[in-house]
Amino acid sequence: MSKLTDLPKRILIGRALHSNKLGETLLPKRIALPVFASDPLSSVAYAPGEVLLVLSVAGVSAYHFSPWIAVAVVVLMFTVVASYRQNVHAYPSGGGDYEVANTNLGPKAGLTVASALLVDYVLTVAVSISSGIENLGSAIPFVIEHKTACAVGVIVLLTLMNLRGVKESGKLFAIPTYVFVGGVFLMIAWGIVRGAFMGDTMKAPTADYTIHAEHQGLAGFALVFLLLRAFSSGCAALTGVEAISNGVPAFRKPKSKNAATTLALMGGLAVTMFCGIIALAMVTKVRMAENPATDLLKDGKPVGDDYTQNPVISQVAEAVFGNGSFLFIVLAAATALVLFLAANTAYNGFPLLGSILAQDRYLPRQLHTRGDRLAFSNGIVLLSGAAAILVVIYGADSTRLIQLYIVGVFVSFTLSQIGMVRHWNRHLAAETDPAERRRMVRSRAINTFGAFFTGLVLVVVLLTKFTHGAWVALLGMVIFYATMTAIRKHYDRVAEEIAVEDEPGEEAVRPSRVHSIVLVSKIHKPTLRALAYAKLMRSDTLEALTISVDATETKALHEEWSRRGLDVPLKVLDSPYREITRPIIDYVKRLRKESPRDVVSVYIPEYVVGHWYEHLLHNQSALRLKGRLLFTPGVMVTSVPWQLDSSEAAKRRARKRAEWNAPGSVRRGPVAQPKREKAATKK
Amino acid sequence: MSKLTDLPKRILIGRALHSNKLGETLLPKRIALPVFASDPLSSVAYAPGEVLLVLSVAGVSAYHFSPWIAVAVVVLMFTVVASYRQNVHAYPSGGGDYEVANTNLGPKAGLTVASALLVDYVLTVAVSISSGIENLGSAIPFVIEHKTACAVGVIVLLTLMNLRGVKESGKLFAIPTYVFVGGVFLMIAWGIVRGAFMGDTMKAPTADYTIHAEHQGLAGFALVFLLLRAFSSGCAALTGVEAISNGVPAFRKPKSKNAATTLALMGGLAVTMFCGIIALAMVTKVRMAENPATDLLKDGKPVGDDYTQNPVISQVAEAVFGNGSFLFIVLAAATALVLFLAANTAYNGFPLLGSILAQDRYLPRQLHTRGDRLAFSNGIVLLSGAAAILVVIYGADSTRLIQLYIVGVFVSFTLSQIGMVRHWNRHLAAETDPAERRRMVRSRAINTFGAFFTGLVLVVVLLTKFTHGAWVALLGMVIFYATMTAIRKHYDRVAEEIAVEDEPGEEAVRPSRVHSIVLVSKIHKPTLRALAYAKLMRSDTLEALTISVDATETKALHEEWSRRGLDVPLKVLDSPYREITRPIIDYVKRLRKESPRDVVSVYIPEYVVGHWYEHLLHNQSALRLKGRLLFTPGVMVTSVPWQLDSSEAAKRRARKRAEWNAPGSVRRGPVAQPKREKAATKK
Repeated sequence: MSKLTDLPKRILIGRALHSNKLGETLLPKRIALPVFASDPLSSVAYAPGEVLLVLSVAGVSAYHFSPWIAVAVVVLMFTVVASYRQNVHAYPSGGGDYEVANTNLGPKAGLTVASALLVDYVLTVAVSISSGIENLGSAIPFVIEHKTACAVGVIVLLTLMNLRGVKESGKLFAIPTYVFVGGVFLMIAWGIVRGAFMGDTMKAPTADYTIHAEHQGLAGFALVFLLLRAFSSGCAALTGVEAISNGVPAFRKPKSKNAATTLALMGGLAVTMFCGIIALAMVTKVRMAENPATDLLKDGKPVGDDYTQNPVISQVAEAVFGNGSFLFIVLAAATALVLFLAANTAYNGFPLLGSILAQDRYLPRQLHTRGDRLAFSNGIVLLSGAAAILVVIYGADSTRLIQLYIVGVFVSFTLSQIGMVRHWNRHLAAETDPAERRRMVRSRAINTFGAFFTGLVLVVVLLTKFTHGAWVALLGMVIFYATMTAIRKHYDRVAEEIAVEDEPGEEAVRPSRVHSIVLVSKIHKPTLRALAYAKLMRSDTLEALTISVDATETKALHEEWSRRGLDVPLKVLDSPYREITRPIIDYVKRLRKESPRDVVSVYIPEYVVGHWYEHLLHNQSALRLKGRLLFTPGVMVTSVPWQLDSSEAAKRRARKRAEWNAPGSVRRGPVAQPKREKAATKK
Repeated sequence: MSKLTDLPKRILIGRALHSNKLGETLLPKRIALPVFASDPLSSVAYAPGEVLLVLSVAGVSAYHFSPWIAVAVVVLMFTVVASYRQNVHAYPSGGGDYEVANTNLGPKAGLTVASALLVDYVLTVAVSISSGIENLGSAIPFVIEHKTACAVGVIVLLTLMNLRGVKESGKLFAIPTYVFVGGVFLMIAWGIVRGAFMGDTMKAPTADYTIHAEHQGLAGFALVFLLLRAFSSGCAALTGVEAISNGVPAFRKPKSKNAATTLALMGGLAVTMFCGIIALAMVTKVRMAENPATDLLKDGKPVGDDYTQNPVISQVAEAVFGNGSFLFIVLAAATALVLFLAANTAYNGFPLLGSILAQDRYLPRQLHTRGDRLAFSNGIVLLSGAAAILVVIYGADSTRLIQLYIVGVFVSFTLSQIGMVRHWNRHLAAETDPAERRRMVRSRAINTFGAFFTGLVLVVVLLTKFTHGAWVALLGMVIFYATMTAIRKHYDRVAEEIAVEDEPGEEAVRPSRVHSIVLVSKIHKPTLRALAYAKLMRSDTLEALTISVDATETKALHEEWSRRGLDVPLKVLDSPYREITRPIIDYVKRLRKESPRDVVSVYIPEYVVGHWYEHLLHNQSALRLKGRLLFTPGVMVTSVPWQLDSSEAAKRRARKRAEWNAPGSVRRGPVAQPKREKAATKK
């Protein structure tokens, strides 16, 4: 960013930061809100439409239930927000759902939550991008005509951005989120002004359409089931609410209080927007059908396959602001952008959760590095691949993808809240201060209600959505769960295998001497260096070893060896089949047999090169030899590197990689120990 | 092979052999002939047809030129055989065309021949398999209806066989080759009996067809050009003749003489079969057209796209033996089998040539091992891939593929013969014995004529075939040539870079002390072993190093360290971002800065596992660390392996791999030095 743009940047995020200090910035609430809220706020772009869509099954007349469903969603939202405010206070270190469930309910519950969250991240990408494309498509028809391709394109773009490592700033989140929130509020306000004060009749583009009810005059159990299904769909508005509970360390002090306030603010905004959009949809007579091609009628005739059903938010905006108006376009663009940002949050969360799981040995151990590039890369590619597959299978249809979405969310809500109840129970058993106990009892009550309510919703979602696609999400969870259990089992087995017995075992038989061997092919600098290093090590015996594949060459080597006065004995092994590995392995095995208590140390000069294709031209024999030597007990293999000139290129690349910024650092906050290095030596 | 089948096997190849003695069997002439002749003899299955096909352009009347073309091919065959008999005598060690050209004409000519041979191997597979499928198809219509698929299927089969490593025996070659040769001779004999003595009129299935001449009444230059083109096509009969010159060491003594005799025998068989088939084709009135769909007329009408033009050999067999007769079927099967065997010879030759080129550093050095499994695998996959692509592009049409084939063959013939002329010139300059000189002068005369004639044919082939597809073969040669030149340049540059100067240079600054570091994550057996080994090495200083990512764990490590009384100081580096690599690299760099003349030796415990997926779960951090450490000058990295129980599986696999037999060992003969291992120690 150039100097000219520094001022607004400084106003927004304080001051220019050196990359490795990024993690140490703390977020004020006005920045924290957009950073964490793009995911939950953006869900109001699709949740209201889903409610109307399900209700339409019973005909337009069923639309009058929508305010009641909105009320139920609002109550649920308040419950969840109130519950997570307890989490935030109880776990100021940023205990996400996985940690809460793991700590309080045991590893199986933790792993279940982790599986649910992993599936959720995939679906966040798929749903948010599909919905973003649909919103963008309401302003730009080309996009909707090539829906799947555009959605996959956005996934690829996000993938590349995240693989490169974006330098994040709160601003990136703040501007689109505030434009989106402002736009929706302006729309609601302007709708009220036009409708109540100016007496305008605002008509949505679908106001004159009628709906063919699949089930006319639904009543009794069937009606209740439909309403529950509509409610389940509306619950999509709650996705992403839990994100703040992971991000408490990123807040300014008092961290927990600020996080709780931001959470409440976010909940308030979300429900206002959700209700406002539903209300406007009723006023402007938006008509949505589950299967628009056959059930949505224009002048009594089905609209057919060519019809595109625009999202409720865009239909309402068209009614309020007018089709093609500047504000309509701005809102559509902001909606799409916020949805893409919401998708991007999954790119931050997925590898972070992966690193936590790796610490608990449910995933390969090397992923545990915080912000490690390779871990991020693998996670990002996996996430993108899974999301892209879903987008292609479901034709980037947000309505069909949402059926899969809500299960995972409510699995983690429910388990997390049950975990919180356990948490308070444990603390209550130890606490004696009456004031503190009162607070705990209140918190426990809130979490109990939260657990009950979210658990109920989970059951409802499972019942109403299972055949609509929730089984896919459950299958995904089972696959993650099984894989992670298998990995953990493997690590546990290995840990047991290598554990040190307290009574002196085989390791008590200490090796006695070291026999060192330097592998020589020709006399060149790498060989001389290997010889010099090996001599420094003062092992008990030292010899150079060469494989003779050509008698003339070997003779020449012998002569040069003498001429240079190299004071290490040179041993020659003949290899008529020009093999390198086998004669050396045989020789080492013989040495080991002759003196089993000795250790053989093999020095191999290794070339360090700069390009991958150079690897094909060097070190292959050495690598293969090393691979075989490792199977021989009592052997150690030492690489003595020789940096070829071309290795400079690789060094530069490595340096560049080291300066890479893991995406998502803004949300994550600084690390627990700010001291960068503390060296302590203990005898 | 079971005991029951041992007797015929013993009769044929002498005695049962232990696998690693296979290379030391020598071939009697009766086995050497089929081993080396499947490629050249099988070409009579397609070469005669190609001659008739080209002549048909000028109408059936032009067929009467075919005996003259046969005579030209016979003269050429005798020339080439006579020439290669000189090669065989001059290079009893098995100097193939590459070695002859390289030694006598310099590396550029050698590389040109090598490129031509590599292209040739690919085309041998493509042409032989396509032709084999066509011959098989004349007996089994299903095969011809799925020509490309069947051809690719045979390629896949050969690939898998060769990747697994076939235990070869001369029998494998002998039976189909002798059945094929016997069948063709029986056909010729029976044809003469039926035609000359019994007065039968034998009619080929196409005898009543007429041919629409594309150019009626061709004369002058155009006719000469057509005849030259027909001759070029007939030269396909010469492919593979040179193979014996690579295989002299596989013959019984006197090697050169036996090889020369076998070569003459092979030439005699080939020309007899070639001429016999052409003669029978004339007698039985076989009609072949270049574009049968439009130019071959039945009752005056084109036969159309559905018509399948069967190979000449199968049409003749049908005329002589009768359609569907037992002998017809046997001959078709034997022809196909011999052609597939011919294709298989390329699978032996390609990796062998690759290993010779690797020795001269034109290909990655690790390929130079004789019979190395990995080298073979890579070569085989490359060969199969290229051949399969050609087969698919050209629809497994042997006629179209042959247009590409002959260029490479004659490039290597010509350069090899020119090389032989130089060879004799050089030897004549040194030789004084008049009898020996006379022999050399005669040999030189033969090679000179051979060089002249094959060079002339090369020019003719280039002129007549360039636009028909020869350019593809030339392009392939250019690509091989350029790649190999680039690889050689790289190796030369590196060799220069690492060469030792005779005046004492930087290497004279000898390192003075070794600072050893053992990396520790937990106290378990692998760590204790690494510590024990490191202590044995008696370096100047030794310390253990651990990265603290979790204060509690580090404290526990410290306590256990003291409790166990480990007498190595333990240093702790804090890593708030849970990074492993960076703190260690920084620490090592600081050590190096403090005492630049010291060497740092880093010991990393390495897990040896049995399955590839376990690699994903272990060693990744260690590998990455090692990768970074290698870029730091003055560092050596020692792996102290710990064999996990599961590594047994990998050990068994490695043992199995070590017992693998490289295909093609029968043709290659024993190695120069039969002593398996000779250990000499020199101070």
